Amino acid sequence: MSEDPLVVFTPSGRRGNFPRGTQLLQAARELGVDLDSVCGGRGICTRCQVRIGDGEFAKHGISSSNDHLTPLTDAESRQRESVLLKENRRLSCQVRIGGDLVVDVPEESQVHRQIVRKRADARAVDVDPVVRPMYVEIPEPDMHDPASHLRRLEKALKETWDVTVAGVDAHVLRKLHKTLEDGGYKATVMVRRGKRLIDIRPGFHDKVYGLAVDVGSTTIAMHLCDLLTGEVLASAGRMNPQIRFGEDLMSRVSYAMMNEGGAEAMTKVVREALNELAQETATEAAIDPNDIMEITIAGNPVMHHLVLGLDPTPLGFAPFALATDDATIMLASDIDVHLNTGTRIYVLPCIAGHVGADAAGVVLCEMPYKNDEMTLIVDVGTNAEIILGNKDGLLAASSPTGPAFEGAQISSGQRAAPGAIERVEIDRETLEPRFKVIGDDRWSSEEGFDIEPTGICGSGIIEVLAEMYLTGLLATDGVIDGSMAAQTPRIIQQDRTYAFVLHDGSRLIIVTQNDIRQIQLAKGALYAGARLLMDHMGIDTVERITLAGAFGSHIDTKFAMILGMIPDCDLAKVGSAGNAAGTGARLALLSSKLRRELEEQVRRIEKIETAVEPKFQEHFIDAMAIPHKTASYPNLTKVVTLPEPKFAQTDDAAGGSGGRRRRRREGRGKSEAAE
Amino acid sequence: MSEDPLVVFTPSGRRGNFPRGTQLLQAARELGVDLDSVCGGRGICTRCQVRIGDGEFAKHGISSSNDHLTPLTDAESRQRESVLLKENRRLSCQVRIGGDLVVDVPEESQVHRQIVRKRADARAVDVDPVVRPMYVEIPEPDMHDPASHLRRLEKALKETWDVTVAGVDAHVLRKLHKTLEDGGYKATVMVRRGKRLIDIRPGFHDKVYGLAVDVGSTTIAMHLCDLLTGEVLASAGRMNPQIRFGEDLMSRVSYAMMNEGGAEAMTKVVREALNELAQETATEAAIDPNDIMEITIAGNPVMHHLVLGLDPTPLGFAPFALATDDATIMLASDIDVHLNTGTRIYVLPCIAGHVGADAAGVVLCEMPYKNDEMTLIVDVGTNAEIILGNKDGLLAASSPTGPAFEGAQISSGQRAAPGAIERVEIDRETLEPRFKVIGDDRWSSEEGFDIEPTGICGSGIIEVLAEMYLTGLLATDGVIDGSMAAQTPRIIQQDRTYAFVLHDGSRLIIVTQNDIRQIQLAKGALYAGARLLMDHMGIDTVERITLAGAFGSHIDTKFAMILGMIPDCDLAKVGSAGNAAGTGARLALLSSKLRRELEEQVRRIEKIETAVEPKFQEHFIDAMAIPHKTASYPNLTKVVTLPEPKFAQTDDAAGGSGGRRRRRREGRGKSEAAE
Repeated sequence: MSEDPLVVFTPSGRRGNFPRGTQLLQAARELGVDLDSVCGGRGICTRCQVRIGDGEFAKHGISSSNDHLTPLTDAESRQRESVLLKENRRLSCQVRIGGDLVVDVPEESQVHRQIVRKRADARAVDVDPVVRPMYVEIPEPDMHDPASHLRRLEKALKETWDVTVAGVDAHVLRKLHKTLEDGGYKATVMVRRGKRLIDIRPGFHDKVYGLAVDVGSTTIAMHLCDLLTGEVLASAGRMNPQIRFGEDLMSRVSYAMMNEGGAEAMTKVVREALNELAQETATEAAIDPNDIMEITIAGNPVMHHLVLGLDPTPLGFAPFALATDDATIMLASDIDVHLNTGTRIYVLPCIAGHVGADAAGVVLCEMPYKNDEMTLIVDVGTNAEIILGNKDGLLAASSPTGPAFEGAQISSGQRAAPGAIERVEIDRETLEPRFKVIGDDRWSSEEGFDIEPTGICGSGIIEVLAEMYLTGLLATDGVIDGSMAAQTPRIIQQDRTYAFVLHDGSRLIIVTQNDIRQIQLAKGALYAGARLLMDHMGIDTVERITLAGAFGSHIDTKFAMILGMIPDCDLAKVGSAGNAAGTGARLALLSSKLRRELEEQVRRIEKIETAVEPKFQEHFIDAMAIPHKTASYPNLTKVVTLPEPKFAQTDDAAGGSGGRRRRRREGRGKSEAAE
Repeated sequence: MSEDPLVVFTPSGRRGNFPRGTQLLQAARELGVDLDSVCGGRGICTRCQVRIGDGEFAKHGISSSNDHLTPLTDAESRQRESVLLKENRRLSCQVRIGGDLVVDVPEESQVHRQIVRKRADARAVDVDPVVRPMYVEIPEPDMHDPASHLRRLEKALKETWDVTVAGVDAHVLRKLHKTLEDGGYKATVMVRRGKRLIDIRPGFHDKVYGLAVDVGSTTIAMHLCDLLTGEVLASAGRMNPQIRFGEDLMSRVSYAMMNEGGAEAMTKVVREALNELAQETATEAAIDPNDIMEITIAGNPVMHHLVLGLDPTPLGFAPFALATDDATIMLASDIDVHLNTGTRIYVLPCIAGHVGADAAGVVLCEMPYKNDEMTLIVDVGTNAEIILGNKDGLLAASSPTGPAFEGAQISSGQRAAPGAIERVEIDRETLEPRFKVIGDDRWSSEEGFDIEPTGICGSGIIEVLAEMYLTGLLATDGVIDGSMAAQTPRIIQQDRTYAFVLHDGSRLIIVTQNDIRQIQLAKGALYAGARLLMDHMGIDTVERITLAGAFGSHIDTKFAMILGMIPDCDLAKVGSAGNAAGTGARLALLSSKLRRELEEQVRRIEKIETAVEPKFQEHFIDAMAIPHKTASYPNLTKVVTLPEPKFAQTDDAAGGSGGRRRRRREGRGKSEAAE
């Protein structure tokens, strides 16, 4: 018993000898064990609870026992009565070491506990709170110590938390005296990035929340998170109210150009939506909106500029110059979001004029910069944002896919919503199709299926095209084989082209030749962008593909490959990331460390501008064919039997110049509408 | 001619050899010569002009000539035509070295030119601009360089100015694109503290101004300065509109305590006054208020809190806890002062609860921390703020003098204004007084003097008391000698005391026994505060005394010493500093370096709280006597013959406890008013 007791912390395995009487929390800190505290060791917050091993621990060569600790203190008894301190736990700030110990730090007592991620393949990351509540007890002012309230507060923060204050919000100064008086000179300070005081509350207060927002052109999605645990407490989403100013990005930029005050009007409505969603999530989670201290925002460059109140019109013309591509930190009130006066927004950095803070969010979500495998990430929207690379470097580009993948400019197309056809199979023999609609798990061929579909969404159109190709209804060049009309009534003639009748109910749902051209243009642009980056990287194949965004989550990746949207890859390594931009915003919300990581990585990404690369047009033309004119799909053909290619037309007929194609597309769109 | 030419810069004397063809500005920079530039060496701003020596310079061992420079450039010719470039000057950014040179840098071409100070004894200090305009030319955005506007701007600032940007105001981001477009990608950025971008203007713009403000309880004084030259361009002052809420500080604090929204009302009116004064000075100087980028504010703790919108009520009770005593930086809009969106305020630090940002201004103005001499500085107001020390350390205290020195609570007292008696002499033989009034240079005894005085101001009351004492009308204990009524009709009886008739015109102006008591209390408090600091410093004499503030500027320092307001000192070293707090605000406005110096010094000052020091009461009682009961005045008696002391009363009669004195004072005040 002459030696100092040995204390071993699990799961970290950190260990050390400490004199009897040492506070257990102090021992943990000296060893660098990750042990939480909001109250600064005063037995109030119950966040430093630990479990003491009881018995022989051969592995550590010691015998541990609850008896090797000082008895339950009053603070512990109170906390145990209020059930905050669990039965077999102790508060490490209350107990002192009296003998050898094995101390288990449960997950919920760690500051840097892991952020919960739904996908099994997502990298584990730890919470590293941007804003932390710190409880302090301050001596009352006194004639013999004429230091100001702020100075005494700063001293307490230094002593209890080793925090050196570097900046205090004006509103904190303004309520400092009253708050200290109200709390009997006990207060909780909200400390941002370990140095700035952004709020103060009387007494003990351990609630601090944040919002992660993905401002999409179509929808705005918000998650309310506990900044300390990383937990998502509520989620909400709504249509982006800017839609009334224009469906897609370019029409909104045009609106800003053509209407005095147009940008301001769009800024106003999106900010109102953010305020409403914030209140909605706070209500859902039953928390005080005043406790929301941090907001992160991801969005494409146009959304980024409109939320920040920056002029979006330069984004409408080459060279698409952003006002700033740095991560932007402001007060929430600077963008008219009114929560706590000290609440900050952090807008993720942009990568380039067409590759915005949404793409940065995708990068943070997927962390390709940590991969050994050469990874292709595609976030499909009106523009596809494409990231290629691995730990040795990343390339980024944006490719103008147009809105076809979102169901727009498709004759029976519609947004992904209940009633939309999302899955399609065509019988190889009978050429009869069957389908599933969003909101029902059954195939249309199953008994009792009686839903009248309202249209085809993006994933549905991909599947029907892939199936038409696999059954020979569609040639490699994208032309519907009119001769098949003899074999099946599903092929019908329209003017000089043919169409496929997917459903003939109260509503006729067909796939026209023009619909197929739209998809060919979109998938050609997508493939060409990816291929351009592969050229720059000097590679011919990729090892992993991730599809991000709503569309990317809905489609069957096999069908995307059958149509040649993406290059060949082991299908086991092609996956969906869901709303990766939103997840990126959530990671940036919960971790200062990840913000720094992202800011560093984003600046290292090499930007490739598709519009100035002649090779892009070449790749585009080749990629119009299904699945592709020149690229091979060895991985795909292992699992799918592709039809023999048969080119009915010349190169030119399959494409021609982008300008010509676009004109033609528009022309057809019009005639279609006129029918 | 094989050796590199020698270039000598005067007046600095810096010298070096440079290869032929070196730009002269570049040579100056390499040698660390202080040479200004706003345009970054593009021949636009004409601030880098120099004079080339012509002839033999034996001292430097070289022959210098204008011929040793490249010929006049187009930029120089244009500037010479517009007379911005003087006849015998060259632009150092335009010329290249072709031979030996002696280059004189005139005062106006230096960045760190001296700040003009009126007093001969004031220390010389240099301008060190807090905000500097920096002109840059930026490459237009381009598809091959997708960097954001901000990134290209930051790159240009780094290249031209070696500035590393650390923060950009939201409004700068918002107007970035338009400003760059409007200026053809030439712009001037306002850079604060060498790192933060607070404004941007199209093209070249070299105007930047600041306001130095002293917010006194009675008056607000504002100076508009050129931040680059340090010049004062306009000054304005007005009554503090808070006066309608209470004459002195304590009545304003009471108003805040007793009236819901009272503090906010006082905050509102003082801020309105600041806005109005800012517009007034800008109009007077014919400058654009939008070019005012910085404001410094000095004021006592109550004014400090009210301007900042902090609750002043804690300043009404012991322990007089300030919300903050640090220098406070905010946006001007945070205190509702609306100039440029990027304009900042810098509020000087406070020293203690009673020794505010005004005292800090006095410290900066006087810089006693640089003195070898032991210096006493007294800023007299309702509270006297007292600083004592030298380069080895400073002490500070506040002493409750009350408003008597400002003419309040004196029967014939009034503020210093035209019509007030400010100087008094009493004939040693006839005991007849003569006086001067503010606004007239003549003595009342001179021929043609026909002004009817309206009252006595602070300096007048000091002089009449000193003269009464020197003529024997007033005893050392402050009692008017009733027996003198036999010798002069100027001494009249009032109840059981006597009074002195200073003027018997349409208005009777007299000095009552109670008036003398008020001044005794005030001067006793002032002396006791100074003496307490001398005790703490362990000294019995001071080597220099400076009186600051309006009262300090008006009184004859000799009379102040005769009455024993201040300790003995060589009269040649007793002086007035004028509005030292305002001067301190101006120095802080013009120099970043001085701000850092002040912040450091203020934290080193030791605060002495008079209220908790028993010695203070003792000193107070002794200091009631004229000039003093125990202190000696060897320096004073060299120039003035003081009467023999005659104490008619006991210690107790001369004072007693502060509480008793105050009650008696109030009682007398009432009976006086009733007469």
